[in-house]
Amino acid sequence: MSVAQMRAAFEVIEPHLEPKTMITDAGSTKGDVILAAKEVLGKKACQFVPAHPIAGGAQHGASAAKADLFQGKQTIVCPLQENSPEDITLIMGFWESVGSIVKKIGVVQHDAIYAAVSHLPHLLSYALMASVVNSEDADQKLDHVGAGFKDFTRIAASSPEMWRDICIGNRTAILQELDRYLLIVNHMRKLVAEGDGEGLEKLFNKASKARQDLDEA
Amino acid sequence: MSVAQMRAAFEVIEPHLEPKTMITDAGSTKGDVILAAKEVLGKKACQFVPAHPIAGGAQHGASAAKADLFQGKQTIVCPLQENSPEDITLIMGFWESVGSIVKKIGVVQHDAIYAAVSHLPHLLSYALMASVVNSEDADQKLDHVGAGFKDFTRIAASSPEMWRDICIGNRTAILQELDRYLLIVNHMRKLVAEGDGEGLEKLFNKASKARQDLDEA
Repeated sequence: MSVAQMRAAFEVIEPHLEPKTMITDAGSTKGDVILAAKEVLGKKACQFVPAHPIAGGAQHGASAAKADLFQGKQTIVCPLQENSPEDITLIMGFWESVGSIVKKIGVVQHDAIYAAVSHLPHLLSYALMASVVNSEDADQKLDHVGAGFKDFTRIAASSPEMWRDICIGNRTAILQELDRYLLIVNHMRKLVAEGDGEGLEKLFNKASKARQDLDEA
Repeated sequence: MSVAQMRAAFEVIEPHLEPKTMITDAGSTKGDVILAAKEVLGKKACQFVPAHPIAGGAQHGASAAKADLFQGKQTIVCPLQENSPEDITLIMGFWESVGSIVKKIGVVQHDAIYAAVSHLPHLLSYALMASVVNSEDADQKLDHVGAGFKDFTRIAASSPEMWRDICIGNRTAILQELDRYLLIVNHMRKLVAEGDGEGLEKLFNKASKARQDLDEA
């Protein structure tokens, strides 16, 4: 759902908001949706406690509904300064009641973390797929992909509409993480061009160690 | 094994090469090893039929040996102009005898294909891992990785020494594929910065369709 659609949803909800009604959401980006809530709901924005459940698969829409979708999955809650402690507790309790493990994180930090570990990898995975498909010998290349390529590009099969909305919704943090990534890629490009095996090995070692630790965590 | 080690191996083999002795290899890059063979073996290079079996896992060394390692796996043979048709048939038969499915591809094409579908994804996966680990909030980020990030970075756990050697050995083709990739990434960066959802969706759609086709192939 794009932020324009979220804004429209807030507009529909706003006239019906009773003083004790609470709103939460389930989007992957938080800064954009909070801005929309504040603009549309005004003072009533204090009744919105933003959330991001880390759940869901390739299917989407109402027909993909599952009763245990959130069971054992993490849900990040990003409270607003305007939220009362009681309301935050209420919404955290709601997310716990559907089985998820709830964690509170500030909105800026949330958007930076997910830009780095989710949004950017999706963009980069789409880009590799597009790069191979656009090359003149695309068929030959696609004929020779192995497990590594398939792992790397698995997330490129994700919903284009959803990821379009996320990329626009969290663009500031994504650009920051992308630029951090491009610094490293351009440095690696230089090491490859110069045949600097020692420099490459040092970087690969650090990355490889960190990735192995992830599996052992 | 680096091309320097391959060159050293050719130097050890050369004095013992009988007229009917044949050599093959099992490296991921072919242009560099062929150059070394021609330089060290001279006229005897016609006794070397280069090969690339697409097999092997995270383990390496003699202790990781497996009798059925090549069973049902593809082996690419990249014959030299100097090889006789009989010798090519002999080496292709050797690779078939250990269970692999043998395919003949020209060396330049081989190196371009594997740069795109294997070497570049490894480099990009190492780069994302390094980028996350180098950021000031690395621990927070690593705490929030999900299945998508793990898929994307799975190959970053690979042997740093092996990938150092491959990146140096196939550097020309890798740089070409990397530059093709960076054109797309920089275009996507522009679309994100400009909030061009339509442009992003078009690119994501093409990539997503191609990736889904891979699973159905």
